[in-house]
Amino acid sequence: MRIRNIKDKKDILNSSSYIVGDPLSYKNRWNDLFGNDNPICLEIGSGKGSFIYELALKNPNINYIGIERIDTVLALAVKNIEEKDKISNLKLINYDASLIDDLFNRDISQLYLNFSDPWPKKRHEKRRLTSLPFLKKYDIIFKSDMIINFKTDNRKLFEFSITSLSNYGYKIKDISLDLHKREDFDNIMTEYEKKFSNKGYNICYLKAEKSFK
Amino acid sequence: MRIRNIKDKKDILNSSSYIVGDPLSYKNRWNDLFGNDNPICLEIGSGKGSFIYELALKNPNINYIGIERIDTVLALAVKNIEEKDKISNLKLINYDASLIDDLFNRDISQLYLNFSDPWPKKRHEKRRLTSLPFLKKYDIIFKSDMIINFKTDNRKLFEFSITSLSNYGYKIKDISLDLHKREDFDNIMTEYEKKFSNKGYNICYLKAEKSFK
Repeated sequence: MRIRNIKDKKDILNSSSYIVGDPLSYKNRWNDLFGNDNPICLEIGSGKGSFIYELALKNPNINYIGIERIDTVLALAVKNIEEKDKISNLKLINYDASLIDDLFNRDISQLYLNFSDPWPKKRHEKRRLTSLPFLKKYDIIFKSDMIINFKTDNRKLFEFSITSLSNYGYKIKDISLDLHKREDFDNIMTEYEKKFSNKGYNICYLKAEKSFK
Repeated sequence: MRIRNIKDKKDILNSSSYIVGDPLSYKNRWNDLFGNDNPICLEIGSGKGSFIYELALKNPNINYIGIERIDTVLALAVKNIEEKDKISNLKLINYDASLIDDLFNRDISQLYLNFSDPWPKKRHEKRRLTSLPFLKKYDIIFKSDMIINFKTDNRKLFEFSITSLSNYGYKIKDISLDLHKREDFDNIMTEYEKKFSNKGYNICYLKAEKSFK
């Protein structure tokens, strides 16, 4: 995604109550931030934020955190969300997902990965969010059973993710190779998903689970 | 597949050396039939036989068995194969796969399932060759690690098979959502596959493995 710079992005990020400015201080005690014991779900690469906002709005008894590495993108998300109804079960963080074990330790119930960068070159495999180095980090962040929800329009990333998750001990609990044709699924579309499904791309989805040991 | 009856099918099946007329007698000793200790691979639903014949021709150090329930279809396979170069590492059986545990006990190294009947209705789920009742039977037929190679053009059967295999403890070792676009795969097409890929259907493929315990 190519993003024009937002001049006042620092002001936007500093002034919004959705933004957690000192995320390192909440490691292993994120429920203190939300002020309740509800489960916490995480989206890595939350982009312009409409997916995680809609999900949080639909599920007031679950807490949601979105992580976005690019500050300009996160500022766009904040601008977008600040215009909508205020909700208390959503927080956003400007952080690099490759350092996710800085932030969480047995805090997370479910993980959402939506339209992650496919990093198509073999030498960049380790940067894919479903590659082995990331799966190892996720082991640390989950509170109990590990649940990953994954959507993409990239066939090769989807194939890679199925084998990677499966070989790491995840079971594929649900899968769709054409999610938008499915009637029994309450899908919330990301901005990217709306754009690319309109162009005729199939959206692939899976839910993978691994038992906590 | 709608098949015209072949009047002389009984003669064809009785006279071919590819056909094993008394398969029950080889349970747990199929290597005696082949006269060597090479691994034995099995195709369930071998249809007109061109896939299993080509595979056997390419791999003379592996033995192959094709099972086909419909005698008319098997007779067509025999007519087809008898016209080609004679090979000694291929046998064909007229039998119902739901009774496969009659035939094999720790005999099989790999299983091939190609374009199996999708049985789309939920109430027919147990008839699908990747459903739980079949996976339980396959546990008995494999000699050591369980390896299933699966191809289909049916999206829903493919989705079902991924979750079914994964939840039964199989790991997805390889997968393709559009096999014919893959350059690193030495694919042998079935008759059905040639016909349906020409019509523009994507061919899906997976290889699943489960450790022998």
